[in-house]
Amino acid sequence: MKGYAMLKIGATGWVEKDIPVCGPMDAICKPIALAPCTSDIHTVWAGAIGDRKDMILGHEAVGEVVEVGSLVRDFKPGDRVLITAITPDWNSLEAQDGYAMHSGGMLSGWKFSNFKDGVFAEYFHVNDADGNLAHLPEGMDLAAAAMLADMVPTGFHGAELADIQFGDNVAVIGIGPVGLMSVAASAIRGAAQIYAVGSRPNCIALAQEFGATEIINYRNGDIVQQILEKTGGKGVDKVIIAGGDNDTFAQAMAILKPGGIIGNVNYLGEGDSVGIPRSQWGCGMGHKQVRGGLMPGGRLRAEKLARLVMAGRIHPEKLITHTFHGLENVEQALMLMKDKPRNLIKPLVLID
Amino acid sequence: MKGYAMLKIGATGWVEKDIPVCGPMDAICKPIALAPCTSDIHTVWAGAIGDRKDMILGHEAVGEVVEVGSLVRDFKPGDRVLITAITPDWNSLEAQDGYAMHSGGMLSGWKFSNFKDGVFAEYFHVNDADGNLAHLPEGMDLAAAAMLADMVPTGFHGAELADIQFGDNVAVIGIGPVGLMSVAASAIRGAAQIYAVGSRPNCIALAQEFGATEIINYRNGDIVQQILEKTGGKGVDKVIIAGGDNDTFAQAMAILKPGGIIGNVNYLGEGDSVGIPRSQWGCGMGHKQVRGGLMPGGRLRAEKLARLVMAGRIHPEKLITHTFHGLENVEQALMLMKDKPRNLIKPLVLID
Amino acid sequence: MKGYAMLKIGATGWVEKDIPVCGPMDAICKPIALAPCTSDIHTVWAGAIGDRKDMILGHEAVGEVVEVGSLVRDFKPGDRVLITAITPDWNSLEAQDGYAMHSGGMLSGWKFSNFKDGVFAEYFHVNDADGNLAHLPEGMDLAAAAMLADMVPTGFHGAELADIQFGDNVAVIGIGPVGLMSVAASAIRGAAQIYAVGSRPNCIALAQEFGATEIINYRNGDIVQQILEKTGGKGVDKVIIAGGDNDTFAQAMAILKPGGIIGNVNYLGEGDSVGIPRSQWGCGMGHKQVRGGLMPGGRLRAEKLARLVMAGRIHPEKLITHTFHGLENVEQALMLMKDKPRNLIKPLVLID
Amino acid sequence: MKGYAMLKIGATGWVEKDIPVCGPMDAICKPIALAPCTSDIHTVWAGAIGDRKDMILGHEAVGEVVEVGSLVRDFKPGDRVLITAITPDWNSLEAQDGYAMHSGGMLSGWKFSNFKDGVFAEYFHVNDADGNLAHLPEGMDLAAAAMLADMVPTGFHGAELADIQFGDNVAVIGIGPVGLMSVAASAIRGAAQIYAVGSRPNCIALAQEFGATEIINYRNGDIVQQILEKTGGKGVDKVIIAGGDNDTFAQAMAILKPGGIIGNVNYLGEGDSVGIPRSQWGCGMGHKQVRGGLMPGGRLRAEKLARLVMAGRIHPEKLITHTFHGLENVEQALMLMKDKPRNLIKPLVLID
Repeated sequence: MKGYAMLKIGATGWVEKDIPVCGPMDAICKPIALAPCTSDIHTVWAGAIGDRKDMILGHEAVGEVVEVGSLVRDFKPGDRVLITAITPDWNSLEAQDGYAMHSGGMLSGWKFSNFKDGVFAEYFHVNDADGNLAHLPEGMDLAAAAMLADMVPTGFHGAELADIQFGDNVAVIGIGPVGLMSVAASAIRGAAQIYAVGSRPNCIALAQEFGATEIINYRNGDIVQQILEKTGGKGVDKVIIAGGDNDTFAQAMAILKPGGIIGNVNYLGEGDSVGIPRSQWGCGMGHKQVRGGLMPGGRLRAEKLARLVMAGRIHPEKLITHTFHGLENVEQALMLMKDKPRNLIKPLVLID
Repeated sequence: MKGYAMLKIGATGWVEKDIPVCGPMDAICKPIALAPCTSDIHTVWAGAIGDRKDMILGHEAVGEVVEVGSLVRDFKPGDRVLITAITPDWNSLEAQDGYAMHSGGMLSGWKFSNFKDGVFAEYFHVNDADGNLAHLPEGMDLAAAAMLADMVPTGFHGAELADIQFGDNVAVIGIGPVGLMSVAASAIRGAAQIYAVGSRPNCIALAQEFGATEIINYRNGDIVQQILEKTGGKGVDKVIIAGGDNDTFAQAMAILKPGGIIGNVNYLGEGDSVGIPRSQWGCGMGHKQVRGGLMPGGRLRAEKLARLVMAGRIHPEKLITHTFHGLENVEQALMLMKDKPRNLIKPLVLID
Repeated sequence: MKGYAMLKIGATGWVEKDIPVCGPMDAICKPIALAPCTSDIHTVWAGAIGDRKDMILGHEAVGEVVEVGSLVRDFKPGDRVLITAITPDWNSLEAQDGYAMHSGGMLSGWKFSNFKDGVFAEYFHVNDADGNLAHLPEGMDLAAAAMLADMVPTGFHGAELADIQFGDNVAVIGIGPVGLMSVAASAIRGAAQIYAVGSRPNCIALAQEFGATEIINYRNGDIVQQILEKTGGKGVDKVIIAGGDNDTFAQAMAILKPGGIIGNVNYLGEGDSVGIPRSQWGCGMGHKQVRGGLMPGGRLRAEKLARLVMAGRIHPEKLITHTFHGLENVEQALMLMKDKPRNLIKPLVLID
Repeated sequence: MKGYAMLKIGATGWVEKDIPVCGPMDAICKPIALAPCTSDIHTVWAGAIGDRKDMILGHEAVGEVVEVGSLVRDFKPGDRVLITAITPDWNSLEAQDGYAMHSGGMLSGWKFSNFKDGVFAEYFHVNDADGNLAHLPEGMDLAAAAMLADMVPTGFHGAELADIQFGDNVAVIGIGPVGLMSVAASAIRGAAQIYAVGSRPNCIALAQEFGATEIINYRNGDIVQQILEKTGGKGVDKVIIAGGDNDTFAQAMAILKPGGIIGNVNYLGEGDSVGIPRSQWGCGMGHKQVRGGLMPGGRLRAEKLARLVMAGRIHPEKLITHTFHGLENVEQALMLMKDKPRNLIKPLVLID
């Protein structure tokens, strides 16, 4: 079969591989819709997870089941399915502990395009099919469905980590596709004011549509200063970090009230250390929590987020600014993600 | 001063009383807007809290401060204020324990029209002014402001008690004004499907506007049966009880999944006992929690809910179906609440 | 193979059956130590779970693995293992939701001596071996190990449901073996005063050894009255119910403070309904939570509780008042549990 | 009156001041027992909170009430009382938010020897007497009572921040008096293995008596390495930081499992930034939470911790290695704390 792969750090191309083998609990799927992710770019061109040779890229897909293992109960060939980017081992101790995404070791629930071939291929392998597939709801837009693989669950996890309560004022730092879903999540989690930090016009427009009440653009001055001014010097109750870099945590701490929480869903690919400013952290005693976590994957999560789409609570399909057709165009979509033209939020590839 | 009072069980009328005395931490306010509550009806005509003699009714008000005690820091005469129906003693041990509404004894944070004169008067007394008043935000609709006294915080507490999570399917039993706010709260707390149980057309219409996805009308058959059918026999993740009676808990238990939570905000005025059906409760082992609580009062709560109004997340002013002008018409508004004409949701009295 | 079975409601006896078949994720074990449970008595003589024909009894065992399925990673024949009484399907949606004990339906994580043959046999079957076995720690007393199957996790779950915090005053109603473990759990969860409700002398002595500070004996008067007197009329912060019947909840509610929690781990086998007294429940608004749940099973749980034994924090072996040797004596141990002589707490059968 | 004061950074001495004035909600107390704290040392000799002129030191006291304000309900002259080191304003918004210790601004619940004169004086002032005093229980050892001001609540807060669950393995870094109470707190919160990191022999002995199962001494090699070895490379579930410096967080992160929590109760007095090692933090996605907070103060807290002493669950009096008599010897006790002889854990001054 054909797949679009990371050949080595800095290089991509089409490879030819055997169709993956299906274990007794697993499924083999073919893609219906695919989306490249910023992580794919970091993986290839920043070497964020180390070197890989001929590893097929991609972890965002909607698919059709073509084969299932003998122990799979709830899926059969022909089923159209959502697949979460993170596919934990559900009968691991980490899953029993509530941290399935770290089954097999920290972050090891992330398997596609990391420890095994990803979804940019004619066929791909899903471990623990009953635990990691969900039936595509009748009538769901494929663009929305594709966003349920990673953008929605990651963005929403930011709001969960930050533990937003009714009437909280919230800052969302970074309004790329994940941050935009964090804005939407904050709005339907009970946030009052949402300060969305970003500068790209189409992201700003969508942030406002998703519920941001104020846009904080670094071009208008220091973002810490701007948010402190808008909050009468008090800062916000919660911060979601969905972009930036290691230094973003110092900004987040500076705008956070005592008793507040930082929820990070941004993968930090570089640097030795994240600095927490001592004084603004209350000398370690300000009850400003720092949390960060990989999105929870799995079937229940996918089903519950899919319900939000079907109930009309969220509209993740609006993230899609560019649509391609045919597996062969996954390359073009990926390059778009690499080049990040100003009108891009997220590309989609439909496999007709 | 004049006030509209419960003269005894079953009788109301205007009374003449001295203007209340202001303690060092307290405030005296005059009303700007008032709303009668079903509790007022239960208090007078069902004797729900026992007999009272010439007790001024009412606990839902927006006001203007006319006097403050010597220790009050943040309010002064002339300030326009939100006042929560529940006005705890904030320097009580119960408040230190997170249950300020029970300061001084179970439910004793409820003072207006219960332990002391209420707000249907030319003047009323607010204990712990710094803790129980909030500045009326510039530009806030008075109808919305009045609903922040009780309808919004009570309805929202239902969603808090039920601990709604992203994608939960939720049933809201009872869609009077409190239940309608529970529907709105569920929608902005992350519920997917919201099954609103009620039958009055204007309540149904508003429930749908506030986010209900399905209306369950007892006239169409047993509500338990209807909800089980619509959920494929599985039931819902969470139930909010905002109406009905002691038997409603058996219905709620029957439609609740294992691991689910019932959040009750309906005052149960009659009967010896609430029956939890043993078998549907999993023989005491089904992890179906039963919670119920008086709304949290106080300034921070009022400020946070007011932010939701100002950010446009909720529209409690839509509860108001009948508006009166002048303190003297509080009687007519109360009688409307007693008679409950079919087109009533909630009346408002503006004191111009 | 031989097993000691429920022949029908009210009758037990030895049966001859085939050795169970091992699925790919499963294990077949033989017992090293066994303990009968009050549930076995209720199952047979009260028909608590309905009729069963020739179903082998028993769900408390320490075992040795004799066979494992092809997908089992962490266990092999010859391994000595702890087995939890509740053996969930870990790759179920309920497990993803944090309620593995209800995988496959409410309470359906309880399989042994309920939906399939139990452990009172020469061999028994364990589903999801990697998820439901734990290695027997080197040097662990077999009596303590046997108590880790059900008595410890069930008793400890009471303290978890009641969410005991530092300095809470706690009542434990019922001090049979489960309640005694709830006393121990309360003590090492941070309870201050522990009011243990019971009357059997050896249970009282062990409750005191496990951390009870006051014994409440119904023979000395109404237990509600006694506890209210000892707490200056205020009642306790939390109640664990580990015995009694449906009426026990009314007593628990009467001694519970507003904001308190009842944690039930007593299987309620009879009656239509559990009555919550309306007035003492604060008319549904007193923030007195009612929780109840089947113990969490599984390997991680077993490992964590085993660590408490190995660290010397708890001494569940002290529950054992009668020890037998040989599988054939499981009958005598069960009858002892049925007859409940006054000096019994818990019997143990060692299979040498 | 006489008081022992910080004259300026680096200098202490006796000062003469007026007896403090009692506001309507306040109390004036005289000390019965006093203890100097490491914070006093940092305040004077490291300038940790900035310069102060003639500020009376000390925040750990047991006292006798000599005067109360007109609004104080529950205390009167002659009452013997516990006083928490942190004395929040209970009718503040921060208290309503659950973070009373930050009332008036981050850390501003810390008033004694910070924003106002401390307790090393003939008389001292307590704000919000009903909220911040607790009656000294009949028969309580004065040494234990003095430790309830700061050492116990701070140490215990570490275990609360780390959210210890049954069977967790816990590392406590730093076993001075606060860390020793964190060890005790971990043991009665349900920890299994407790790895206590320290090197002073009498602290080690007391850590073991309080429940530590393993002592990790930096003299035996890198503490990270030692703990990883003892946990089979897996690390611990939770870490409490009660000593060390900004670099301690990197060690804590290195020994913490994914899903784990660091609870810091060590005041970080120096440096710009606390570094969180990126890779060991799972690139921001490892679900390793960082929490830190000032101890909760106030009456309920003091009462609940006092109950633990009276129930015999904890023995904080064992921290006291040196006892002095007479207010004049508070100077000697403080100097002892400054010099930290090897046999010191904590000194106490009894005012007979």
